[in-house]
Amino acid sequence: MVNFSLMGAGRIGKMHAEIISAHPNANLKYVYDVNKKFANEVAKASKCIKANSPEEAINSKDVDAVLIASATPTHTKFITMAAKAGKAIFCEKPIDLDIKKVNKCLNEIKNTKVPIQIGFNRRFDSSHAKAQLARVKKEIGELEMIVITSRDPEPPGIDYLKAAGGFFRDTTIHDFDLARFILGNDPVIQISAFGEALFDKNAKKQKDHDTAMFILKSKKGVLIHINNSRRAVYGYDQRVEIFGSKGMIISNNQTPTSVERYTNRSTTVKDTIHFFFIERYEQAYKDQFNEFVKCVTKKTKPKVTFEDGKNALIIANAAYESYRKGKVVNIKF
Amino acid sequence: MVNFSLMGAGRIGKMHAEIISAHPNANLKYVYDVNKKFANEVAKASKCIKANSPEEAINSKDVDAVLIASATPTHTKFITMAAKAGKAIFCEKPIDLDIKKVNKCLNEIKNTKVPIQIGFNRRFDSSHAKAQLARVKKEIGELEMIVITSRDPEPPGIDYLKAAGGFFRDTTIHDFDLARFILGNDPVIQISAFGEALFDKNAKKQKDHDTAMFILKSKKGVLIHINNSRRAVYGYDQRVEIFGSKGMIISNNQTPTSVERYTNRSTTVKDTIHFFFIERYEQAYKDQFNEFVKCVTKKTKPKVTFEDGKNALIIANAAYESYRKGKVVNIKF
Amino acid sequence: MVNFSLMGAGRIGKMHAEIISAHPNANLKYVYDVNKKFANEVAKASKCIKANSPEEAINSKDVDAVLIASATPTHTKFITMAAKAGKAIFCEKPIDLDIKKVNKCLNEIKNTKVPIQIGFNRRFDSSHAKAQLARVKKEIGELEMIVITSRDPEPPGIDYLKAAGGFFRDTTIHDFDLARFILGNDPVIQISAFGEALFDKNAKKQKDHDTAMFILKSKKGVLIHINNSRRAVYGYDQRVEIFGSKGMIISNNQTPTSVERYTNRSTTVKDTIHFFFIERYEQAYKDQFNEFVKCVTKKTKPKVTFEDGKNALIIANAAYESYRKGKVVNIKF
Amino acid sequence: MVNFSLMGAGRIGKMHAEIISAHPNANLKYVYDVNKKFANEVAKASKCIKANSPEEAINSKDVDAVLIASATPTHTKFITMAAKAGKAIFCEKPIDLDIKKVNKCLNEIKNTKVPIQIGFNRRFDSSHAKAQLARVKKEIGELEMIVITSRDPEPPGIDYLKAAGGFFRDTTIHDFDLARFILGNDPVIQISAFGEALFDKNAKKQKDHDTAMFILKSKKGVLIHINNSRRAVYGYDQRVEIFGSKGMIISNNQTPTSVERYTNRSTTVKDTIHFFFIERYEQAYKDQFNEFVKCVTKKTKPKVTFEDGKNALIIANAAYESYRKGKVVNIKF
Repeated sequence: MVNFSLMGAGRIGKMHAEIISAHPNANLKYVYDVNKKFANEVAKASKCIKANSPEEAINSKDVDAVLIASATPTHTKFITMAAKAGKAIFCEKPIDLDIKKVNKCLNEIKNTKVPIQIGFNRRFDSSHAKAQLARVKKEIGELEMIVITSRDPEPPGIDYLKAAGGFFRDTTIHDFDLARFILGNDPVIQISAFGEALFDKNAKKQKDHDTAMFILKSKKGVLIHINNSRRAVYGYDQRVEIFGSKGMIISNNQTPTSVERYTNRSTTVKDTIHFFFIERYEQAYKDQFNEFVKCVTKKTKPKVTFEDGKNALIIANAAYESYRKGKVVNIKF
Repeated sequence: MVNFSLMGAGRIGKMHAEIISAHPNANLKYVYDVNKKFANEVAKASKCIKANSPEEAINSKDVDAVLIASATPTHTKFITMAAKAGKAIFCEKPIDLDIKKVNKCLNEIKNTKVPIQIGFNRRFDSSHAKAQLARVKKEIGELEMIVITSRDPEPPGIDYLKAAGGFFRDTTIHDFDLARFILGNDPVIQISAFGEALFDKNAKKQKDHDTAMFILKSKKGVLIHINNSRRAVYGYDQRVEIFGSKGMIISNNQTPTSVERYTNRSTTVKDTIHFFFIERYEQAYKDQFNEFVKCVTKKTKPKVTFEDGKNALIIANAAYESYRKGKVVNIKF
Repeated sequence: MVNFSLMGAGRIGKMHAEIISAHPNANLKYVYDVNKKFANEVAKASKCIKANSPEEAINSKDVDAVLIASATPTHTKFITMAAKAGKAIFCEKPIDLDIKKVNKCLNEIKNTKVPIQIGFNRRFDSSHAKAQLARVKKEIGELEMIVITSRDPEPPGIDYLKAAGGFFRDTTIHDFDLARFILGNDPVIQISAFGEALFDKNAKKQKDHDTAMFILKSKKGVLIHINNSRRAVYGYDQRVEIFGSKGMIISNNQTPTSVERYTNRSTTVKDTIHFFFIERYEQAYKDQFNEFVKCVTKKTKPKVTFEDGKNALIIANAAYESYRKGKVVNIKF
Repeated sequence: MVNFSLMGAGRIGKMHAEIISAHPNANLKYVYDVNKKFANEVAKASKCIKANSPEEAINSKDVDAVLIASATPTHTKFITMAAKAGKAIFCEKPIDLDIKKVNKCLNEIKNTKVPIQIGFNRRFDSSHAKAQLARVKKEIGELEMIVITSRDPEPPGIDYLKAAGGFFRDTTIHDFDLARFILGNDPVIQISAFGEALFDKNAKKQKDHDTAMFILKSKKGVLIHINNSRRAVYGYDQRVEIFGSKGMIISNNQTPTSVERYTNRSTTVKDTIHFFFIERYEQAYKDQFNEFVKCVTKKTKPKVTFEDGKNALIIANAAYESYRKGKVVNIKF
């Protein structure tokens, strides 16, 4: 049984609290949030202790692992605390928006040996993972192109935008990681980035984007396209296409039911796809957590590492540089 | 070059006139119709001679083949005339609605040797034909079930109904033939039939049906289901499913374009399927005719014979007997 | 919190034990099975008491509800015991294979008032249920046809067959119930049944079937087709098609992932569908149980009643009569 | 009746000869090719005159229109000749590989008034055209993204490559035009281009590409992605996705039949898609030609103009500049 402290009890923290509670080998002991109301809600629902300080949550002796789902700027601090206390760490993406803070954290924890897993949940989606495995097994021969479509159902509020670090670091970072996941040991070396604010007034106000397109190139010459939007009225559009010398695999969208309608106006009409990430990646979030529990109990190496978190941020930063300069930027890890 | 006379210049006759004219090895010489206006229209459009009598159309020396698309009750008379004149014959389904007339015709032409092909066009649809070929090649192992869905877009008028010989003989006859086509040399031996008049006032008035379901059994024990409707608001629903020990093949519906729509209400929305048989089976009608021209020019045996036409009618008659008696009827060919 | 006794700890009983344990408002107190090993396994996994007798399991004061998943011949006895003990009852299908025992049971419990729910799980499948709801809301206008395809992945062993009561009572009974579910208050009044033993030696030995087709007719004239097989090599084929005056709805099959493959031989290649009922109807089993817990805690009326269980059996019996006599049989409830 | 001269009797010329011959209002009078064998073949098949010189073909009094399907470097010469002779002109893409020659040609013909249509056939594909029309009608609201996937089945030989002018000018030019078609009066203003030679030795030898990706931006900020490959083993992959504020439309691939296979390894298996452009765009080629005949007979304005041909080349040239410089290039028309 792995005993957990949960840092952060907002939307994503609550989801994690439920996943921890439902896992046969995990137990939620403490929850901490600066927002006491949120912390109380989770403490009550999960019958765990509301910690009065991060220290109480992280350092308590009866805690084996810390799940960090708090505000992004607190991530590196909690990682460092937990690593020094010898606790296993699961941290939501991104590690931080500032690469300097990420590097500093890495330096501070370099002598600790706790397992750290970063929350790139999409790697655990059974469809995306099946496509990746097919690439590994060369079922499509030599990989030549990747096309990732990733569109949110609707834009977030301005408060979210202010803290999110920009569209590329907040959203595309998932797709950068997914591209790295599929590429395996073939690193991305170049990027060209386009960003626009076409419809979201808040994005415009923040000089942020709501629509973006990217091309990346790997060392072996694989070309990767990513496109993002803050708004897809038909739901959370999540598609991955891998193309190679022997064929193509598409990890396609999923509808909640398998119902098809036929009327005098149209045929094969399916439901809208899943609304957003909590519905779409429900299985992925569970399997991601299960994998982390296995890392702790069976001393296996995490499948998504601190380096993965750092490298995705490096690509996002290069994307911004490409966008600003209007040129292809070389990526150095 | 095969020179044709066309008997009948109504809707289906006009379609055949166009197919004959477009064929590189066929030539339309004469057209005959009791309705002079129709005959004139085809004669003008196809630049052929309007015959003043069936005899002129059929017996003229410069005619090699007769395509019979006239009213059903005239079929056997024209077949007999053409066979005795030594002309190759393509005759629209059904041969006749009365099995006695069919048998009499068969007797009258038994000593003639002209090729006769019956217009069961669906056998030539490339998708249905591919399913049938897969059955022959045992791609689904041993055949165990066939499910045929065949629904018209909208009911015909009462005049059509009065002459059509009943829903089973007019419409299901195509599906009976399709079942026989897929079964190959395994004959159907039993049938159970249900018919209802659920929505079409004309069908009710005529004590005819607009909705029907059938189960047939072959000698080897293959079970076949057919369902029919006179009205499918989404278009002409034409599906064939064959199921066996090693898998299943579905010859599915087809939409005019490959466009898919995604909105805030639904996804993967396709167009309505083809409206009716002339659009849906355009390729089949052409290939059927091409096959007939080959029979004439290369002296090959027709792929859909007079016996096929007769046997489909025998099944339709057994279907009516089953319906009337409320029991499973044995079929004897 | 509803405290349960579980009768039967075989494959389906184990599944129910897990569902009870995972439910936030349910608690597994006792398990009983004539097979002590099975009972011990469940008692251990679910941390509940292994009852030494049906009486202990059913009559214990700390038990609110009894879930009956034991061998079919024991169902009516346990229902009667539980009803007389005032416990809520969830009973797996079928109630019994013998309509006399079902009627006797009904008579014995007529003065009891406990809620009884029968395990027709498919009614709770979100896709089938959506199709049914669309029928209720007349989204397809007036219902005219239902086509149910229901094929198991592989035949069971001979021991199962010996106890199962025949293909129609064991398997088609689910489809008979599903047809009744979709029809609502329009009862089925006629049936025609075909059964064959085409591939399963055990079925042949037992004079049972492995392949079957049915047509049913409702009072309003709706025609219903059902086809069944004991073997579909591509998985558990579960499709429901409802067709009406304004369109069609298909509750289609589901694949475990949304991956599509494209090679030099084929395109849009999807995985095989779910292997069997436990995977395919996972959501339905959970929602079915949740509904039952609601009946107990909120005193609502069960959505699948004892009468539903009885009526499905009556149809199955009529199917056998139709099969034996080779005729359409009228159904009386 | 429009009388045609055909310049060029190679593969694409032969296809055009057949289309001209089959058209009810067109007539093929002359064919010219430097390769006399090719010219003879077409002359014989289409029963037209083999011209001994371009002048004979183009200037003959009984010729109304010239269809130019000869080698690319001859296009502008023949356009000029035909325009000065007052003949209507249909010219295959590209007008030329050299923008200077295109401009010179434009200058030479500026005072002529013959209709000129360029062979961007994809605009006439009924699925792509339906997507474009939906954009015009704002069925997807405001356009925000376009994703074009365009992959050939297999690389051409080295002789073709030598004359083709590079992958971007030979292949992507179709997609540049398709993007312009969908954008309507919103011009593209920027491009970023990536090209690789991953598998085709001939492409490597020629310092050409076999794999490419592009991002374009329109004046209104619409982002457009194009990806190309010289080899897709599953067939000629032609997809267009348009995405906007109210939804998405995909013009998807098409398989020759509607057959789906289900086995113990996979389900919903469709045929490979159409092999290449002649099969895939058969309808588009015919409708394109029909449109041109209408321009000639009804004096309507061509839907694909000389400017369209020139502008697609300008984008291709900008793509090469972007590729060479590793930066986003501004496009000036």
